[in-house]
Formats: sequence, C-alpha cells, structure tokens
Amino acid sequence: MLFYDSPNPAPNPRRVRIFAAEKGIELPSQEVSIPKREQKSAEFVAKNPRGQTPILELDDGTVIAESVAIMRYLEALHPEPPLFGTTPTEIAAIEMWCRRAEMIAMAPVGQVWVHTHPFTAAIPGRNQEWGETNLPRVADAFRFFDQSLADRDFIAGEDYTAADILLLTTVDFATFVGCGMPEDCENLRGWHDRVSARPSAKA
Amino acid sequence: MLFYDSPNPAPNPRRVRIFAAEKGIELPSQEVSIPKREQKSAEFVAKNPRGQTPILELDDGTVIAESVAIMRYLEALHPEPPLFGTTPTEIAAIEMWCRRAEMIAMAPVGQVWVHTHPFTAAIPGRNQEWGETNLPRVADAFRFFDQSLADRDFIAGEDYTAADILLLTTVDFATFVGCGMPEDCENLRGWHDRVSARPSAKA
Repeated sequence: MLFYDSPNPAPNPRRVRIFAAEKGIELPSQEVSIPKREQKSAEFVAKNPRGQTPILELDDGTVIAESVAIMRYLEALHPEPPLFGTTPTEIAAIEMWCRRAEMIAMAPVGQVWVHTHPFTAAIPGRNQEWGETNLPRVADAFRFFDQSLADRDFIAGEDYTAADILLLTTVDFATFVGCGMPEDCENLRGWHDRVSARPSAKA
Repeated sequence: MLFYDSPNPAPNPRRVRIFAAEKGIELPSQEVSIPKREQKSAEFVAKNPRGQTPILELDDGTVIAESVAIMRYLEALHPEPPLFGTTPTEIAAIEMWCRRAEMIAMAPVGQVWVHTHPFTAAIPGRNQEWGETNLPRVADAFRFFDQSLADRDFIAGEDYTAADILLLTTVDFATFVGCGMPEDCENLRGWHDRVSARPSAKA
C-alpha cells in the first residue's frame, strides 16, 4: 500500500499519521504538495476525483479517499489498540464525538480558513463576511468541548480514541489559521497538553 | 431505549428510520417537533446540548446523539444485514461514500437551506449570497454521484449500504429545499428509483 500524504498544516493527512503512530503502523508514503497544487494534477485526480489528500492506494489499485475511511481501514487490519471502540456504546460515543469534532469545530474553522485567510485568496466563491460569521462559532465550539471535558480525560470517555485525533488536528489547525482556543478554555487546554504529549502527536 | 424522532422533511432522523427498517428493528419513539422548536426546550437540551434531533436514549440514561452514531450503535447490536461493511475494504469504501455524501452533497444542500429558504429566515447569521454560491455546488455534487453510479447499482459497490441511506436522504431533502438533482443525472435517477422502491424508503 502507498499513503499519499501532505505535510502540516494540512489537518486531514495528519489525522492518519497520528492514527498510524498510535497503532505502531509504518505507512509507506509519498508526499503530495498542496502549495504546488499536486493534488489537482491529472495523475492524482485519476486516483481521487475530488483532488484531495490523503488517499491510501492498495496493492490491487483500490484507492481509499477520506481520512476517516483510511483510519477505519487501518483499524480493521490492526484492531489493537482499538481507537473506534469495541462495545456498542463505545462505538456510538466515539462516532458521536468524531462527528461533533467535525461538524461543530472543524466545519467553521474550515470556513474561516477558506473565506478569510490570505493563503486561500484565490479560491473561487470566497465570501469574507461569511468567513467572519464563523469566527465566534469556532470560539463557541471550543467552549462546548471545554465544558464537555470537565469530567473526563478524553473527549469520548476515559480512553484516547479516534475522536481525540480529530479534535487535536482541528485545534492545531485552528491555531494555524488564527482562530485557536479562547484563553478561558482550561479543560480543553489541559486535554490539549495531554494528547500533545503523546509521541503520536509529532506525526 | 427511546428514539427521539422528528418527521420529514428533517433528513437526519429519517436516516435512522430507514436504517432501522432495513434491519427490521422496531424503535420505540417519541416525536420532537422542529416547527415548534421542541428540540430547543430545556428538557431536550438537557439530553443533547446541541439541541438537535435525532437522539437515542438508552435505558441507563446514556444519550447517543448524531444520526450516524445511532446507526453504528444499531449495527453493533444487530449486525445482520451489515450496512457498514464487514471486510476492511468494504468498511473503508462505505465510510468513504458516507463522508462524500455528507461533505460533497449534504453540506452545500444544508447551506442553501439555512441561507436561502423562507423557513429558515429567522436563523442568525444568514448570508443569502453565500447560500446562492452553494446552488451550483449542489448540482456539481449530484453530477459527481451520477458519474460514480455509472458502473454499479449502489453508491459504495454492489450492495445497499449506509452510504445509500445518507445519499437518499440528502437527495430527497435537496428536492424539498428546491435544489434537487439536475435533469441530466440519469444514473443517479435510476439509483434513486431503485433505493426509493425499497420498503425502508417510506420511513
């Protein structure tokens, strides 16, 4: 298999690198440069018509796009340690928190990035006002996660899971974009210190 | 367990109803009226701080929010017929297509709904221009799914899966919003006829 990766600050490929590091999986990889727009090359678009990294290409030519789909593929091949849960309630809680990380936090961070950041100025359909509408939504999202972390060490419960990976990459990408967590988010900051101290966070 | 449901056209509760119907599961349910804003009542928000339906409340008081988290919970309890796959490549393909249905199609449909539809005029932060920017994105999304369905009966492969449920509820909600599939989407229309003919689609 070959992992088509893009370096930081791209948040989605990093999810897979952290996930693989937590599992102890070495992924053979090839870099796709987003600043050089290599993800929009004809060769890459033939593999993923959406023109986005990351993808995982299997030896039979099957392409898995979407970071979380690659993570679930790796979980199925290497179940230990489980990062998507094993009991029905764990599986449900982790999916719920993965979706909340994406819908509540990553979605507005992405809108701030696409509609206000200087690096994305050439993207068609930019709408500065809409981008700015999302700034307080990002802060509200981080406060929601901050409150949710008041009674536990990790976002989906007592164990580190895929949901922590999605939230970590979102928080770090938000900081890069310039809309990082508000000062008063002490629980979220404690959690961020905890997950960032894991060796996988360097991925 | 008790399923807090909202009737059509709400797309997310319908996902769970279709999923349960495909599994032959009878879910005890209680209606939460979105026009009456019952999902924002103190009683409901105590169960789901996001103030959104659907949720599934278990007998021990655990609340599972997010439609796909409820679907995965039901899959874990009732594995047959599998709707999220069983082999690593099936699991990955279904997750990939679930995410594509949500990110590529449902996301812009949701923006058209929230920013342009008369029923959502009271929502703060409306941006008509941004809503209209999403109209051609919805059409592009449906054309992408149309092309993807050229060589197979269902969106993630030869079998009906959770990804078909996410795409069906998106297509039908888009029609309600007024941005349904373009005339030229023959493969998508054939797929829509196929999945709509299943008894579960009446859910």
